[in-house]
Amino acid sequence: MADQTARRRPATASPTAPEVLVAPRGLKGVVVADTTIGDVRGTEGFYHYRQYSAIELAERRTLEDVWALVLDGALPRTRAESEEFRTEVARHRALTPRTAAVLPALVGPGFEPLTALRAALSLWGEERGLRPLLDTSPADAREDCLALCAAVPVLLAALLRLDAGLDPVDPDPSPARGHASDWLRMLTGEEPRPERVRAIEEYLISTIDHGFNASTFTARVIAGTGADLGACIVGAAGSLSGPLHGGAPSRALDAIDEIGSPARVDAWLRPKVASGAKIMGFGHAVYKTADPRGALLRRVAEGLGGELVERAAAIEGRIEEVLAEVKPGRELRSNVEYWAGVVMELCGIPREAFTPTFTVSRVIGWCSHVLEQTADGKIIRPSARYVGPPPPQPVP
Amino acid sequence: MADQTARRRPATASPTAPEVLVAPRGLKGVVVADTTIGDVRGTEGFYHYRQYSAIELAERRTLEDVWALVLDGALPRTRAESEEFRTEVARHRALTPRTAAVLPALVGPGFEPLTALRAALSLWGEERGLRPLLDTSPADAREDCLALCAAVPVLLAALLRLDAGLDPVDPDPSPARGHASDWLRMLTGEEPRPERVRAIEEYLISTIDHGFNASTFTARVIAGTGADLGACIVGAAGSLSGPLHGGAPSRALDAIDEIGSPARVDAWLRPKVASGAKIMGFGHAVYKTADPRGALLRRVAEGLGGELVERAAAIEGRIEEVLAEVKPGRELRSNVEYWAGVVMELCGIPREAFTPTFTVSRVIGWCSHVLEQTADGKIIRPSARYVGPPPPQPVP
Repeated sequence: MADQTARRRPATASPTAPEVLVAPRGLKGVVVADTTIGDVRGTEGFYHYRQYSAIELAERRTLEDVWALVLDGALPRTRAESEEFRTEVARHRALTPRTAAVLPALVGPGFEPLTALRAALSLWGEERGLRPLLDTSPADAREDCLALCAAVPVLLAALLRLDAGLDPVDPDPSPARGHASDWLRMLTGEEPRPERVRAIEEYLISTIDHGFNASTFTARVIAGTGADLGACIVGAAGSLSGPLHGGAPSRALDAIDEIGSPARVDAWLRPKVASGAKIMGFGHAVYKTADPRGALLRRVAEGLGGELVERAAAIEGRIEEVLAEVKPGRELRSNVEYWAGVVMELCGIPREAFTPTFTVSRVIGWCSHVLEQTADGKIIRPSARYVGPPPPQPVP
Repeated sequence: MADQTARRRPATASPTAPEVLVAPRGLKGVVVADTTIGDVRGTEGFYHYRQYSAIELAERRTLEDVWALVLDGALPRTRAESEEFRTEVARHRALTPRTAAVLPALVGPGFEPLTALRAALSLWGEERGLRPLLDTSPADAREDCLALCAAVPVLLAALLRLDAGLDPVDPDPSPARGHASDWLRMLTGEEPRPERVRAIEEYLISTIDHGFNASTFTARVIAGTGADLGACIVGAAGSLSGPLHGGAPSRALDAIDEIGSPARVDAWLRPKVASGAKIMGFGHAVYKTADPRGALLRRVAEGLGGELVERAAAIEGRIEEVLAEVKPGRELRSNVEYWAGVVMELCGIPREAFTPTFTVSRVIGWCSHVLEQTADGKIIRPSARYVGPPPPQPVP
């Protein structure tokens, strides 16, 4: 805890060095910024966007309404305001020619959707003529955020289809088409069923933002230098690909497949725990109780129904029982990954598109944090403590 | 200062919220990591790599020797050890086919070398099959760092030449060819003169690392998630493009051109200062005395000689006099940018390649920090303080 580990000491042996504050390892528990975008209350199993429960928003509003809330600070108050934002977003859904031309070169051996997205977004930013955020008006920066968030699913769907040997599906710029629906349509090439659209929409809403996670912090560190929006989002996408950042819904679903049935949980789980392996889909760095996103997505999955849902619920129950027994007091409950994988599978999303689906919504949160950090205007530049042999020693 | 601004308060209104530590704005003065790579002593005008003065290293060793020091922790002790490292690096100088094929698509309208480098490096990482650093052995990660650092000048030179309508120049994989020499050769298409090679080599050595600047911190934040090396370096390159990060040697040189002669300094400078504009090439966030890199590069420039050097010295002197008069006590002295621009101009480097030249060396520092952060193994995940309207309020 911060109370035990934070302490002041000189940065170097130099007598002129100023006093510094040594932060807890990994900056855990250290507040680096004020935000009005949202927060996570880990001990309460609660998180919010602005002043609203994120779960309640997912259950009651459209993705576009919540997008407007997170980006601009307020929910549309009337149907006309909702339509206006939908129209604004929809007209940005496009594959621009210079970026489109390079996409086929980004797929192939070793294809990683997020790595290819980094390359595509870098070029997209050049094509759009993105300027450093410091030199961009707030109105233009907001417009760039809308365009970038609208471009991400278009680019990802095109890359995934090209890698699978399929032709990309053009985006639908009609405001009647929601963002969630168009993602499913561009991915599968088919008109998606309404219950699937709504299931993915709830998933997307619930994953727009989640406190100061590592990718969001990366986006803000880069934004703090005044860099362009593309640089911030490309950096955040890089952090997201790190295994310690968090989720991989496809891994949790792979585990469900591997286990097969609730009766086989013990034989699968106990050796894993004994060897110290992490159990994908269970436990969370912040939640010390059930992950509220997991509970939402379980309800969504149950709404879709089917054998997989029943099996996943039974396996979840047995895994939590065993974990409570062998790791008492740790509160290792299912997290967002576990049920997200089930929901995406039920909606016909291929597994390699699970993490890209997460990116489609999280980029909205990243962009909002970038705008907030830019308004703050202060570079994020901490210090390190040199602990090597004392300099200067003569160069041999 | 940390002493005044750091304080503990609850993160939220919740009675169960843990105590948190509120860091000074921008984490200024907060130690977030231990490092043995180097440090900056701003009040002393001194910085070092490992236990050696960086300036002394620049004056007395080759770029490859200092690269070995920063990456591996020790200078080569014998000629054979030096040769071994040179050979190791040289054989990584190559343009790999999949990445090479996409480069022509990355130049064109709105070309920004660092943005195109981000795209190229993302693809390069896929082509090399980079895995998350968490799943990569230290030996393989080190090898990836060498390959990436060797690829950066090759990619940048090819991009700059393609954008200028010229054919890329193949890298020279011979160990007899130094990294600095090959950069100049690939950029200009000509065999560079030895005094120019040595001037650029001193510049490159002096800019490998410089404490915990924003791009280095970005690389470490991404590395903390266990992401792959490409993700870390692409993120750092994004930070580097931010105007608040620091330098732009071409802007300082543009200013010298604009001023023309020392007699015109006052007419150019005083209105700028009065309007609150930042004077490019003067002042530094960390140095409160002369920037030691500026002093080194002035000596390097004087070694090359010529009218520009004399004019730059006279203009520098008058600017410092005026700044001392109108901003007393601020110690606004010339920084690394000022003389870096002059040195690069004298070496025949086109202005659009000034920042890329900086990247050629700084990537060595980034990679070393990424390896150090990976060895630490802890995610960097601070907190934010929610200051918006209290949740939950019912969703309308």
